[in-house]
Amino acid sequence: MDIPSTQKAAVKQGTGDDSTIAIQNVPVPQPGPDQILVKINYSGLCASDKSLLHDEWEFRMTPQASGIAGHEGVGIVVAVGSNVQDLWQVGNRAGIKWIASVCRKCEFCTNGSDECHCPKQLNSGFTIAGTFQEYALTDAHYATRLPDGVKDEEAGPIMCGGVTAYVACKRSQVKPGQWIVIPGAGGGLGHFGVQYARAMGMRVIAIDGGDAKRDLCLKLGAEKFIDFTTTSDIAAEIMKVTTYGAHGVIVFAATKAGYEQAPHLLRPAGTMVCVGLPKDPTIIAGAHPVMMCLKKLNVVGSVVGTLKDVEEALDFTARGLVHPILTHGGLEDIDRFCADMNAGKLAGRAVIKIAA
Amino acid sequence: MDIPSTQKAAVKQGTGDDSTIAIQNVPVPQPGPDQILVKINYSGLCASDKSLLHDEWEFRMTPQASGIAGHEGVGIVVAVGSNVQDLWQVGNRAGIKWIASVCRKCEFCTNGSDECHCPKQLNSGFTIAGTFQEYALTDAHYATRLPDGVKDEEAGPIMCGGVTAYVACKRSQVKPGQWIVIPGAGGGLGHFGVQYARAMGMRVIAIDGGDAKRDLCLKLGAEKFIDFTTTSDIAAEIMKVTTYGAHGVIVFAATKAGYEQAPHLLRPAGTMVCVGLPKDPTIIAGAHPVMMCLKKLNVVGSVVGTLKDVEEALDFTARGLVHPILTHGGLEDIDRFCADMNAGKLAGRAVIKIAA
Amino acid sequence: MDIPSTQKAAVKQGTGDDSTIAIQNVPVPQPGPDQILVKINYSGLCASDKSLLHDEWEFRMTPQASGIAGHEGVGIVVAVGSNVQDLWQVGNRAGIKWIASVCRKCEFCTNGSDECHCPKQLNSGFTIAGTFQEYALTDAHYATRLPDGVKDEEAGPIMCGGVTAYVACKRSQVKPGQWIVIPGAGGGLGHFGVQYARAMGMRVIAIDGGDAKRDLCLKLGAEKFIDFTTTSDIAAEIMKVTTYGAHGVIVFAATKAGYEQAPHLLRPAGTMVCVGLPKDPTIIAGAHPVMMCLKKLNVVGSVVGTLKDVEEALDFTARGLVHPILTHGGLEDIDRFCADMNAGKLAGRAVIKIAA
Amino acid sequence: MDIPSTQKAAVKQGTGDDSTIAIQNVPVPQPGPDQILVKINYSGLCASDKSLLHDEWEFRMTPQASGIAGHEGVGIVVAVGSNVQDLWQVGNRAGIKWIASVCRKCEFCTNGSDECHCPKQLNSGFTIAGTFQEYALTDAHYATRLPDGVKDEEAGPIMCGGVTAYVACKRSQVKPGQWIVIPGAGGGLGHFGVQYARAMGMRVIAIDGGDAKRDLCLKLGAEKFIDFTTTSDIAAEIMKVTTYGAHGVIVFAATKAGYEQAPHLLRPAGTMVCVGLPKDPTIIAGAHPVMMCLKKLNVVGSVVGTLKDVEEALDFTARGLVHPILTHGGLEDIDRFCADMNAGKLAGRAVIKIAA
Repeated sequence: MDIPSTQKAAVKQGTGDDSTIAIQNVPVPQPGPDQILVKINYSGLCASDKSLLHDEWEFRMTPQASGIAGHEGVGIVVAVGSNVQDLWQVGNRAGIKWIASVCRKCEFCTNGSDECHCPKQLNSGFTIAGTFQEYALTDAHYATRLPDGVKDEEAGPIMCGGVTAYVACKRSQVKPGQWIVIPGAGGGLGHFGVQYARAMGMRVIAIDGGDAKRDLCLKLGAEKFIDFTTTSDIAAEIMKVTTYGAHGVIVFAATKAGYEQAPHLLRPAGTMVCVGLPKDPTIIAGAHPVMMCLKKLNVVGSVVGTLKDVEEALDFTARGLVHPILTHGGLEDIDRFCADMNAGKLAGRAVIKIAA
Repeated sequence: MDIPSTQKAAVKQGTGDDSTIAIQNVPVPQPGPDQILVKINYSGLCASDKSLLHDEWEFRMTPQASGIAGHEGVGIVVAVGSNVQDLWQVGNRAGIKWIASVCRKCEFCTNGSDECHCPKQLNSGFTIAGTFQEYALTDAHYATRLPDGVKDEEAGPIMCGGVTAYVACKRSQVKPGQWIVIPGAGGGLGHFGVQYARAMGMRVIAIDGGDAKRDLCLKLGAEKFIDFTTTSDIAAEIMKVTTYGAHGVIVFAATKAGYEQAPHLLRPAGTMVCVGLPKDPTIIAGAHPVMMCLKKLNVVGSVVGTLKDVEEALDFTARGLVHPILTHGGLEDIDRFCADMNAGKLAGRAVIKIAA
Repeated sequence: MDIPSTQKAAVKQGTGDDSTIAIQNVPVPQPGPDQILVKINYSGLCASDKSLLHDEWEFRMTPQASGIAGHEGVGIVVAVGSNVQDLWQVGNRAGIKWIASVCRKCEFCTNGSDECHCPKQLNSGFTIAGTFQEYALTDAHYATRLPDGVKDEEAGPIMCGGVTAYVACKRSQVKPGQWIVIPGAGGGLGHFGVQYARAMGMRVIAIDGGDAKRDLCLKLGAEKFIDFTTTSDIAAEIMKVTTYGAHGVIVFAATKAGYEQAPHLLRPAGTMVCVGLPKDPTIIAGAHPVMMCLKKLNVVGSVVGTLKDVEEALDFTARGLVHPILTHGGLEDIDRFCADMNAGKLAGRAVIKIAA
Repeated sequence: MDIPSTQKAAVKQGTGDDSTIAIQNVPVPQPGPDQILVKINYSGLCASDKSLLHDEWEFRMTPQASGIAGHEGVGIVVAVGSNVQDLWQVGNRAGIKWIASVCRKCEFCTNGSDECHCPKQLNSGFTIAGTFQEYALTDAHYATRLPDGVKDEEAGPIMCGGVTAYVACKRSQVKPGQWIVIPGAGGGLGHFGVQYARAMGMRVIAIDGGDAKRDLCLKLGAEKFIDFTTTSDIAAEIMKVTTYGAHGVIVFAATKAGYEQAPHLLRPAGTMVCVGLPKDPTIIAGAHPVMMCLKKLNVVGSVVGTLKDVEEALDFTARGLVHPILTHGGLEDIDRFCADMNAGKLAGRAVIKIAA
């Protein structure tokens, strides 16, 4: 395959809220012995990309990222490192994730469930260059194979948004036939959550605002919809539906209100799953100890998922059960999409067509 | 058996921090059809008794409790209700717990793990009269049988303190060979926790202050002791011992500092168990969402235990593996013991000799 | 409500394979203090009823059963014992199950998951009179409340057949998106299993014979159908669909062939759930140790379900997700239906209209 | 480090029961890019080595094994392949296991618990040359690091025997304070099992024959000992101790009697763990379906353990809680030890001093 020596990339300019991206020509990198080079057809644009591009968190994109965000990239393998010729072939479809690489030897890599917490992990668009470029490198051992029946533009947002929603549903421990509440159910993560929860046999109560969101959530499989723009006491409404409260609630939104409200929606022994990463340092995910204990609550954190989780998440799409709602654009639309996210106006997940 | 018509009881006087108890003559109650009457030989004095006697929480002792606290009572059955003659015989040893009665039909009573969250439960020394009297009533279906080999004075504190520590260890999900941190390890709940955790195969890091506590904790089975009076950075010390942090931490203390520190002691995927019930309404058990998610933490509430849990907790004592450290007294010592608790001066668990 | 003093019942005549039932007039029993008397509108006819009526097992119907089988009875409460007036009211809808009563104090009744193994349990149609009579007694504490939206004739077969299939699905530990194999998927238990598994997010491979069964299974939610009448190597076919074998298989059929084949359909770490109770004493549910170990298989037994399980099983029907296929008849049809069962000709579950 | 070009190895001669080993000079192999070369100080001799050397199973040692058995080898790394210089250094202590290598990409390698079932695994002493030679190769990614405080001669038998016993204890699902039965408790695997079970908080009932075994088992931590040479009804004896039967039983012995007896020792919901791999093809690990179902039994297979399991198993020894009983010898003693095993005369685990 013909690989050019330079390529287009969306490169971060400036710092803080005023940061923007610029489309620049940058060199096409060469794969190291354990890497593959992927021609990126599509990359999702995640809220974390926005947070990193705008320096919203304490930790910042490192120099090694070269200002190139993006961690939901999918495309075609165009070059394979010398050690991994048996793993990948030029022409294979591959996905690049937030976690680009793990050490595969530490306790978290070997204990069977916590590789996402490997202290030596590399992260696309954070500690190494991401997928907002035409050709991106990733660790051959940790790249994801794409199943037939999943289009590139759908696979992209599943690399992070989809698997995040899927794993949050698993972390909720909600069983088939039990109630899960998804605030922001019509949003970028929420609409994934509704579909995965439904496919896992859960009964979904969607919370969002307005008739368009209502229609969307019910169409995606929610059994009840609560419109926060017209419901004065959401907890009371949840109790009316569920008698004692829901078995689980997933906090996808990175807001103080979201975190404060969630434990009040739960029945005894219920589980609140934390997903949204707010910049406000005063937020504590949890509840007063009296509520925690007397209701035997569980508050659990969740972040992306393992290599295997991603395969499972993709499989639901291959089977036709989960589809992202996409807002399409190109690299030049990233700044606009970030602004739309901040305004809460972005429909579903943004996906950037790059080298397709 | 000869049952008198009146008896001595410790009855709450006044409200708030200035509340005291008075020893008064009160009628001996008669068992209803599903109740047993227990001559109370010993009753433990729990921190919750102190909190209820001193109106420390939002919820208060109800009139039905007649001002009589106490929920760690053990003794001899002296009368049996008409419906439960097949369950209990006069002369059986019985234990009375915080949860005196559950409905046995709601979802929490029937789902196999959550009877402690039955919304119709009655609580000894809170919504019905407790065990700080010579003769106390309790639900025959929910009273606990005492195994041979457990003395009354030891069984008392296990009814609440022991089972609370035991269940907190179970809730931690810490596996044999993994690390659990117990702040306040030399205290009333903590010293139970060290013993149960050890008997369950966990490696215990005890935190407390002073050489006497160090000696106690190591004798009870802690593998490491961290003296908070001489250790400037406890989290760093924990990391030194455990490399990545502990697998679990139990917050027995009802303090803001205890709740704030706990998540920082954990490794990724670790679990913080909430037990202490502070009156300070500003405390939130949990952590910032970024820490919750990036470390995949679990924060879980725990309160007493089921009927079966209590039997298991007693069994460890019958086997000689767990023994409470006792401070002995009579009904007249309750106020003094409460003061000692507030001052952090009470050694182990207080146990009140009543009708023995 | 007017309760007659005598009633019609189907009473076992003779022993062994030649046993029959006779419709006889028998006294209407009076509830004991903890019992309710239920006017039976419908009762399912379970394969276990047939086995007990025909003395197929080592254990036989006891004299206390008065020759009256039946353990899937539903109807209306017409009398309430003196101790349980707060639990039930005349006019409530109630369901009677295989397990009529448990002791509620033994380790199995209190450990939260094993009440079905209470050694003091009473069983409808086995150790006490069953539901093939117009008025049947049952323990008020263990009778099942019927939710709105579930018709009596559907609720009956769920009391045993439905919950048996539902709990077998749970015991399989198959997760949403994983494969479960159901041999005999078009049968009385199998067609329940397909529906529950599907509602729990599993991918169902149905095995049965003929086009009518194929159509039925696919309609009920199976993703693949394997016709054993035309497939020479079923294990190979399963491997073709699942690559490494299925995650679970449920053996509903009480046949040697069924038990022998099942472990060969599993992938490593898969689970075989035993449900069918054959009379052939030479059958061993399991596999050769080399296969058990090298494939890390799980072989687990399952029998009916807890009070809570039955509520959950009913809830799936109330939600419209699981419906039994019914073959209708009266008490006089029991012998004929037993013969049809033996011939493998009975469609779905037989349900007997009694006092409706 | 000076590596010779030839070395001593114990090489299989002949086939079937009459096979022997011969000490021969063979070339020292060179590590491939992902391998390390380990100078083997000690290697345990496992019953599986005997079975493979004597062709007891359907599957046979492959030509690639060059007739060299052994899969419990520990020693010093003397050469490191070109790709794995960052993983290992010459002079590191390393352990070689039954599973020498896994593919690290299949579903079993990535699902977090089943890497031992990777279909592409290589096995030491079975599909590649084992550790009965002075210098053995193994996959650098799957070799085990040895912790301080564990001597080579103890680490060897833990590589397979120790981890097998440890994982069997985990597979039993027996909780702290519950009963586990270990038939053959004084044997090579059994004496490991007693110690691990004890360290995990289980109550151990050891079964074996004779006073020496009794003394050994009680010293290692068994709470009860049943002498099969003097006990006519072992199941009855187990019931006497446990009331309803044990919570778990581990079948280490590869005998028909062992497999047949085990389910009869269990209480409802108990678990039988299969470990022993008999050559008799008529053995079925399991029970009659009526017993399986009515007692809700679990029969589960177990084989060695994951990389992480081995680290955990070693950690118990580093902490001083588990020590193998060793019978020492050299390569020339292998045939004699195999004969002793067959005769049931080998004490504990045989360990072969090789290059130490």
